[in-house]
Amino acid sequence: MLEKAHPATIDGTEPKRPEVASGVWVPAATPFRADLSIDYDRYLAHCARLFADGAHGLAVLGTTSEANSLDLGEREKVLERLLKAGISPLQLLPGTGTSSLGDTVRLTRHAISLGVRGVLLLPPFYYKGVSDEGLYAYVREVIRRVNDKRLALYLYNFPQMTTITWSPLLVGLLLQDFPETIVGLKDSSGDVDYMETLLESYPGFAVFPSSESLLLKGLRKGAAGIISATANTHVAGIRALYDNWQTDQAAALHDRASAIRAAAQPFGWIPAVKAILAAREGTSDWARVRPPLDELNDDEKNDLLAAIEAAGG
Amino acid sequence: MLEKAHPATIDGTEPKRPEVASGVWVPAATPFRADLSIDYDRYLAHCARLFADGAHGLAVLGTTSEANSLDLGEREKVLERLLKAGISPLQLLPGTGTSSLGDTVRLTRHAISLGVRGVLLLPPFYYKGVSDEGLYAYVREVIRRVNDKRLALYLYNFPQMTTITWSPLLVGLLLQDFPETIVGLKDSSGDVDYMETLLESYPGFAVFPSSESLLLKGLRKGAAGIISATANTHVAGIRALYDNWQTDQAAALHDRASAIRAAAQPFGWIPAVKAILAAREGTSDWARVRPPLDELNDDEKNDLLAAIEAAGG
Repeated sequence: MLEKAHPATIDGTEPKRPEVASGVWVPAATPFRADLSIDYDRYLAHCARLFADGAHGLAVLGTTSEANSLDLGEREKVLERLLKAGISPLQLLPGTGTSSLGDTVRLTRHAISLGVRGVLLLPPFYYKGVSDEGLYAYVREVIRRVNDKRLALYLYNFPQMTTITWSPLLVGLLLQDFPETIVGLKDSSGDVDYMETLLESYPGFAVFPSSESLLLKGLRKGAAGIISATANTHVAGIRALYDNWQTDQAAALHDRASAIRAAAQPFGWIPAVKAILAAREGTSDWARVRPPLDELNDDEKNDLLAAIEAAGG
Repeated sequence: MLEKAHPATIDGTEPKRPEVASGVWVPAATPFRADLSIDYDRYLAHCARLFADGAHGLAVLGTTSEANSLDLGEREKVLERLLKAGISPLQLLPGTGTSSLGDTVRLTRHAISLGVRGVLLLPPFYYKGVSDEGLYAYVREVIRRVNDKRLALYLYNFPQMTTITWSPLLVGLLLQDFPETIVGLKDSSGDVDYMETLLESYPGFAVFPSSESLLLKGLRKGAAGIISATANTHVAGIRALYDNWQTDQAAALHDRASAIRAAAQPFGWIPAVKAILAAREGTSDWARVRPPLDELNDDEKNDLLAAIEAAGG
């Protein structure tokens, strides 16, 4: 059994590294051509618009990006193209987690070699019912093999996809043993208690909820920001909430962002985000997803767009 | 919605291709050195012994092999080393499924390029709650991109790991639309009703249950054979059951094989199989697993070995 970290070893309310991310980070959706290849022109234009609309950075190559439906070479090329387009490597938080240690190390080293510092690490997601000890050993091996002090790891918690939760106990032990490397966590669980436990237990640890509905509550407890699928389509409103959370506009901004989020939810984040972008840009190409996901049908698209409009989006 | 295939399009009780697998196929465990690299000497010796003890073939690079903890290059090299050791490509059924279309196509084409015909295809296992339509589109794309008439696909059904079931409806549609390519299914679900539904609905479709306890029942309904983790350690008894299922020895052989299987079950298949091999060969090296899995501790190993012995194994 793992033993609990001594609280005294995790202290301070400031991030340990000056470049630790904060703010509104967008898990940019990945547009595909009819042959399912990545449409880089459309992708780079989308990313540029996200920055123009208020994104602090891009958490590319995560669940919303369909990264686990891309092959390893494509995942590397996406980063290379973003950097070539002039985006700073410090404004990118790519997902580099796979089900295998070796492939994860490959993607992580590639990102670091390009100047990227922060990466989002999924747990190895094939086996189910794995232990904290096994996950600890996995993270330790990733850090040992990448072997680069520039690496900043953000744990990616998404039990609905992986069946695995980075337990607060395990997070504490990783923070204790790798204090220069483990810097934050993206929490896609939607579990308020989990988010608050992390924020209360580990001040200075950069926690990012994934839902607009949890952003205000999170910021009040010390969250670093947000990484939300619907920031692909509504980043300006989320940025306004982030910038004004301590003002008397906060409640109204929270209500509006949360209403848009709630309107999209029944349609599945990835097909929904892509359908909204397709409608905005007047091209059905944006709506395309890679199998095993399904594109929304016409009725669903119409219902989604009506729901978003009704929510003020 | 997918529509049900017309029953008349799936007929005959003989496999459609002469090389379709049958019999006892072993999902060979993968031994690791202290640095977690594959110990090929030990691996090849293990595979040779499995054939000597009665295996008809090896279903390598599946769950028991920890294939999804290997990187893509390692998965390719394993096949190359097995063939270089003189194993016929027709005695290999490698797993080539990953969460991504591109990586799955890469591994499948590589296997076919080496003369392998049959591969085990996991569904793309990252996203949850995917539809039959999405899975159909995925398989269609794999077949289209591999684009090789030699390919024989065995669907790999393991909902406990993937959360996905290849529904009998979807299996029927794939059989209808790709009758020369979709030839069988490994069923690790342990769901008797599911196995029987497939066997009754699609005569000639090569179904392999994964448990000794279902082999006799399966063979009576037309199953092609078995692919079981515990065949790594007890293949001779399983082969005896397969060879004698229509004789009066069948019940006793079934009882013994099932008892050994039941003795190992509480310890988790992969650590259990490896611990038994470690004890037999007198080396703790065999017991090693890749994270996120955990090796059994000494107490667990002792309890496992005692349980196997008590079961007559």
